[in-house]
Parts: sequence; C-alpha cells; structure tokens
Amino acid sequence: MEKIPYKIYLSENEIPKQWYNVRADMKNKPAPLLNPGTLKPMTLEELSGVFCTELAKQELDDTTPYIDIPEEIRDFYKMYRPSPLVRAYCLEKELGTPAKIYYKFEGNNTSGSHKLNSAIAQAYYAKKQGLKGVTTETGAGQWGTALSMACAYLGLDCKVFMVKCSYEQKPFRREVMRTYGADVTPSPSATTEVGRKILAEHPDTTGSLGCAISEAVEVAVKSDGYRYVLGSVLSQVLLHQSVIGLEAKTALDKYGVKPDVVIGCAGGGSNLGGLISPFIGEKLRGEADYEFIAVEPASCPSLTRGRYAYDFCDTGMVCPLAKMYTLGSSFIPSANHAGGLRYHGMSSVLSQLYDDGLITARSVEQTAVFEAAEKFARIEGILPAPESSHAIRVAIDEALKCKETGEEKTILFGLTGTGYFDMVAYQKFNDGEMSDYIPTDEDLKPGFEAMPKVNL
Amino acid sequence: MEKIPYKIYLSENEIPKQWYNVRADMKNKPAPLLNPGTLKPMTLEELSGVFCTELAKQELDDTTPYIDIPEEIRDFYKMYRPSPLVRAYCLEKELGTPAKIYYKFEGNNTSGSHKLNSAIAQAYYAKKQGLKGVTTETGAGQWGTALSMACAYLGLDCKVFMVKCSYEQKPFRREVMRTYGADVTPSPSATTEVGRKILAEHPDTTGSLGCAISEAVEVAVKSDGYRYVLGSVLSQVLLHQSVIGLEAKTALDKYGVKPDVVIGCAGGGSNLGGLISPFIGEKLRGEADYEFIAVEPASCPSLTRGRYAYDFCDTGMVCPLAKMYTLGSSFIPSANHAGGLRYHGMSSVLSQLYDDGLITARSVEQTAVFEAAEKFARIEGILPAPESSHAIRVAIDEALKCKETGEEKTILFGLTGTGYFDMVAYQKFNDGEMSDYIPTDEDLKPGFEAMPKVNL
Repeated sequence: MEKIPYKIYLSENEIPKQWYNVRADMKNKPAPLLNPGTLKPMTLEELSGVFCTELAKQELDDTTPYIDIPEEIRDFYKMYRPSPLVRAYCLEKELGTPAKIYYKFEGNNTSGSHKLNSAIAQAYYAKKQGLKGVTTETGAGQWGTALSMACAYLGLDCKVFMVKCSYEQKPFRREVMRTYGADVTPSPSATTEVGRKILAEHPDTTGSLGCAISEAVEVAVKSDGYRYVLGSVLSQVLLHQSVIGLEAKTALDKYGVKPDVVIGCAGGGSNLGGLISPFIGEKLRGEADYEFIAVEPASCPSLTRGRYAYDFCDTGMVCPLAKMYTLGSSFIPSANHAGGLRYHGMSSVLSQLYDDGLITARSVEQTAVFEAAEKFARIEGILPAPESSHAIRVAIDEALKCKETGEEKTILFGLTGTGYFDMVAYQKFNDGEMSDYIPTDEDLKPGFEAMPKVNL
Repeated sequence: MEKIPYKIYLSENEIPKQWYNVRADMKNKPAPLLNPGTLKPMTLEELSGVFCTELAKQELDDTTPYIDIPEEIRDFYKMYRPSPLVRAYCLEKELGTPAKIYYKFEGNNTSGSHKLNSAIAQAYYAKKQGLKGVTTETGAGQWGTALSMACAYLGLDCKVFMVKCSYEQKPFRREVMRTYGADVTPSPSATTEVGRKILAEHPDTTGSLGCAISEAVEVAVKSDGYRYVLGSVLSQVLLHQSVIGLEAKTALDKYGVKPDVVIGCAGGGSNLGGLISPFIGEKLRGEADYEFIAVEPASCPSLTRGRYAYDFCDTGMVCPLAKMYTLGSSFIPSANHAGGLRYHGMSSVLSQLYDDGLITARSVEQTAVFEAAEKFARIEGILPAPESSHAIRVAIDEALKCKETGEEKTILFGLTGTGYFDMVAYQKFNDGEMSDYIPTDEDLKPGFEAMPKVNL
C-alpha cells in the first residue's frame, strides 16, 4: 500500500453528485415537526410559508436515500471543495500514540467552516423559487458569513440577525458579512415585535440563537419574497452536510482505511450529522460498525443532560415544535461560554440516533478545549475554531487512551473550521482569564419547566 | 485536452525538491550588500553576525541555480502545500472577458499568506545552528504570524516587533502570534536603544517597517543565541519563495498552458520574486518570453517613482546597505494607507530585473484596489488580503483590456493571502471612508535627500 499523504485531495469529479439522506435508512424515523397551534405534523404547505418549497420538501422527505445535487451547487462547491482529508502525522508523533488520526478539514474557505455547504444549497433553492432574499440568525458568525457569501454569489438579499454577544465579541465577522453585501442586526433588536418583547422582559440579555431565530422568522414571514433559512438542526441541513462524510469516506476508501471512531463537535448537529452520514448509513444497514462520539460543551450539554422531548426551536415560540434532546428554549449558556455550540437543542436526526444508542455523546469543559486547540495549532499548523476544538479534545483523549492500551485505533474527526475570528476567546485563554462553568441541576430546571406540554 | 478544473492541486510528491535561485541566470547580478562602515561588500563572516550562517550563505550565493530543500522543511510544506492553482472561471464570466485567468492561492494556511514558505526555512536553519531563537519585524502581521508558527513547530523562541499602527489596527494578529507562543512588541518601542531614539525624535510616529527592522536587528545582535530573520526584500527570501512559481509552472505545464502575463503585488518583493522565478528564468535563458507586472500602491511607489541607488534598509541605519529602487529609509506611507506593501525599498533582485527592463511596474490607488477586492470576494468566494488585491486590480484591468481587443490572453496572478485580519480596512471601505493619497514630489524629497552618499 502506497504511503498515505499528509493531505488527501479528491479530484473535482469526485465531489459527490448526490447528497445522502440518512433518514431513509433509519428504522426509527426522527419525529416530525409539529404545528405549535394544532400539534399536528407540519404539512408541506405550512412549512412552505417559512422555508423555500424545495427545502420544505427535503425537510419532510425521510424515505429517499439519495438526492441529486443540482449542477449550479456543484459548480459552487468546486470553488472550495473537495476539502482535504488530513492525516495528522505531526499530532500522532507529538502524542506518541499508536493511533492513526485523520481529520476532515472544512475551514479552507472564507466562511471559515463547513456551513457553506448548506448555505449555497439553501440560497440556490431560494433563487430558483424567484425570491428576493432570505433571513437568518447567526451565533458565532460562521453561518451568517457562509450565507452572505452564497447570497452574494447568486445576487440574493441577505438579512442576518446576529446573537448580540457574538456581534460585540466579533466585530470583524460583521464586516465580512457586510463586505458580502449582507445586512447584519444584533439580536435581540428593536426591529421586530418578538425582539422588542424579549428586550422588554430581559433588557440586559446578550442574546441567544433562540431569540435570533425568532426575529429572523418574523421578518421572513412578514416580508414579501423572503424565506427563512437555518444553518443547523434541520434535517435538510444534515442532508446537505452529508458531502463532508461522503468525501471523507471516498478518500479513506482509496487507501483501504476504515475508521474505528468518528468524532465531531455538536451544537445543532450539522457537522456531526454530515460527517457521520455514510458511516452511520452502513451501520444502520448492518454493513459495518463504527463508534460515533458527539462532543458538546459542558456549559451547553443538550445530549448529555437534556431531555428527549418536543420543544420550541426558538425563544419566541414562533417556529414549529421539534422532538429533540433539549435544555429548553429559554436556556442560555453562562456568560463565560466562549465558543459556539450554544443552541439549546439538537438535530432530530441525531437525537433519535442517540436515543437508539447508535451514537454516544461526551461533554468537555472549555479550558480543556482551548488547551487542545493551542496544542493542535502549534503542531498541525491550523488555528482551529473553538467549536472544532471540542472534537480535537476528544480525539486527543482517545489517542492518549490508545497510547496506554497500545491499541492502533483509527480516529477520524471533523475539523469544522478556523478560529481567525475567535481571537477574543483565545486572548482570554492566553491571558489565563478563561474559566469553566458547568450548569447545576438547578440552573437547568427553568428550561425544562418551560417546555411545551405536548409530549405524548 | 481535458477540461481544466477550478483548482489544480499537485500531489505531495510534486512539491519542489529544490528552490530555484534566479540570480544564477541573471547576466547583471544584483549589487552586493555593503557594510555601512567600510562601504565594502558584506562578507560571510559579517553577515553571519546578523543572520544564521546557512542563510548568509544563501544570501551571497548568486551562482548556484538550484538549492536542495531539506527534508524537514519539505515535511512542513506538506502540511499546507502544494497550494492550489485556481482557474478563475467565475471571474472570467463576470467580466465577460476572453482572457483566461489563473491565480496561485497562497492563503490556505493559518499565517494567511505565502510568508510561511520562507519562515519555516529560516526557522529551520536557526534551529539547525543550535540557536535559542530569532527576532523579526512585521508590518501587516502576516510575516510575524508565519514566523511564530514555524518557531512553535520547531520549538524556537520568537520575538516580533510589530509596526505600531498595524499592532493597533490588528489586535487579533497579535493574539494569533501569542497563541503560537511569540513575544510581540509594538514598534517603535522603549525596549531598544534605536526605538528610544526614534521615539524621542518622533514621539507620535505610528511606526514603519524600517523602524521595526532596526529594533529587531538590535535585539538579535545584543542577545546570546539569537539571529535576525526577515520576511521579504532579501535574496534568500526570494529563493525560498520560488516554490510558489515552481508549483504554478508545474501545474500549468500539466495542462499545456503558458501564461502571457504574470502579475504580482510588490512590497519588498517576496511574492512577486517567488511567483515569477521559473518564468523569468526561462526569459533570462532565452527559452521563452513573458510579460511581468509588479503592482505597488500609489502611496508607496518604490519601483515607479523611487531611485535605483544604495540605501539604508532600516530607519536606524544599522543594517547593510542595499542597492534597490527606494524612496529613502525615512519614507513612511501616508496615514490613510490601509494595506501592507509599505516598505520603502524593493528586493535587489527585482530592482535589477526592473532596471534591465525585464519586468514592468504599475502603481494603483487603494480605493480601486478595494473595489477589486470586494468584487473578487463576492465572485470567487475568497476574501483577499489588501496586498493581494493590488494584483487582482491589475489582473482585472488586463482582462478588461482583452475584452476590448478580443485578445485571449492567459493571465496568471499571485493571490498571496486572505484579508481576515484586515477588516478594519474593509470597514473603512464599506463605510465609504477610504481615500486615496498619492505623495507629491515634495513629499518624496526628504527620503531621497537622506539617502547615503555612496552611490558610486
């Protein structure tokens, strides 16, 4: 067997021609979105008021295993894909581990993350439907940047509600979005009804994804020719993100490599869901077995400490209800939480897989995450996003376990993006001012209590 | 002929195994560095007091055409090279030009630019010589980041003097360097003799590369086990940067493509010199002809308005004298100058080639540069560094000329890096607050008058 290079680049022709829809292979399908008024499953017509029609169809489709990627989207993918699958030779050597470590690096594009994979898809369908523009929320700013880029490319208007604390911590993210022609508003804002309501109740709030979603949905529904788009959580997003896993698997297959463990950070689940998709597909079909680890922040532990229940997707409670592992839509991570991964719930697909015992989850504290990030940056030469560094932390931990046991496990993790716009957080870490905070059971109680009483 | 992909990636084995030393093929060699005291050419011994011995040798070697790249450096290159050669299909379409546009993209690494190519080489030789660390200056911050990364990888100490206005405009650059373990000081500083002298004379100065070089050299010379390293201007740097051009040529050759015009931004000349090296080699040997365009800011026009003369390389006049196109070591670009490319002089190699009429030069104003940058970002999906955008501007201008004339020219330009840490400048542009300033002949006079009187 030929020596595996540091970076495996597929050719342009090997960019997937179809997305893989994991739901088609799930025996226990993810629970449907519910209309918050009637508590009945959302129909295509209802969903189409909020989402582009084609995306609403994808959201409801849990039977078609492969969905063609339109040529125009593939052309856009060619500008930054295939993304490299990297063999972490330097990290392995530094750790002295017999484990073989690979990472799929999605940060080699200006949005700085994997989010662009779904942004271009969603913008494309909006354009095709003849819309004027789209609205969205963004937390750490990666999704907003990705959507701005996709909209600039297609000539669509783009309105972004950015969680206020991120807006303040990351002024330059806003400028990138503006350079791509987007309109960026810190959330909660006085520009929407729901924003004004939240501000009246919590004048000092630094915002949350849940608030920003409510504002973006309100603007989409009230504006002519606009729809709302979302960067994570939804099943359609996991569908688009399957390109990550499909490319990773094609690259590994070329060298006859099969991962034992697949690790991804998990906020809403877009990266993890995309990365594991072809592998979990094989597991669901009984063709192969893998261990999957979702890594989440100890300060926002939806899988490890949340409840599996129907919940509101947003703070303003204007969205459909989703069944997911959740901390409650009123949950906001403590102010010392530095990275992304701050959504209160988790993708319905991943929640169901987790509930079925097909994937595992682990929570990590942020100082340990930044230690891993800094080590990785110095050894592998890439300054990682705090989000991605959750996966790095657990990949290193697993590799160190192998050092103890002597196991030669093959570890694959998702390096979702770069941390170039997260230097305020790195500065805190460099100055020794970063702390950990694990919410107490008391802290979690209000979120659980505020959940809707529809859990049948 | 197979359709040319959006991105041509060479394989790891195609990373050059030797650097190309263009001086070996120059009939008129670049003038030697002079000892500022004796006005005689610097000897290896003299140079070795400032630079690592191996690098001093490379600096003096104008006869060896190919120099082996040590295995350890090639291993580091494998972490981020080969860099992609991109066919700008989207930009061509948007411009409606018959020209074919290619760019060699050097920004896919955490330093955000091509500077890493020389940083790892210089750090490697310092390590091999058993030094404790290196000192340097940085302007826009790309070189300092690159050197910090290389030093972190090799376990070397790294002291960076950062031009004060960049230090203030780019606080996050400093944090990246700190994350890589570097010590960063705004220049001029009170930590050096030359810094204190400059501050006494110009208490309000926002600094210049010339000042920062003087400080870094002083610290290197006065500290045990340290040497000074420099990210541009020097012939050794152009040697290391030849990997850019060598890879670009290999990629183009694969598809039988020969560029008509090669365009690069030029500050000290490291990128342009590296990009054109194998092409100008062919031109020097009479094997092929190409047009070369050096693009510089109208606010710091060393080639287009400077003098070809021996000059000080630094403000403190502690460095050897170099013969180059220069605006004088006291020249500081006007405060409204937003990007890098602010050095008063130009690589001796490029200066000689320019003086011999083998390359041409053009200056552009910064609002036109940022217009090109924004257009490029929206169409090609990469937010470019202001420096790189000088080359984009002229590439677009050349492509538009082809649209008028109907010529199907092949244009190759260097996209040296990304602008993720330049959002203060983009913000100015987005807010319509960016202006142009072309120095008057009066403005240039003091720089010329302060040049040393050694021009024989």
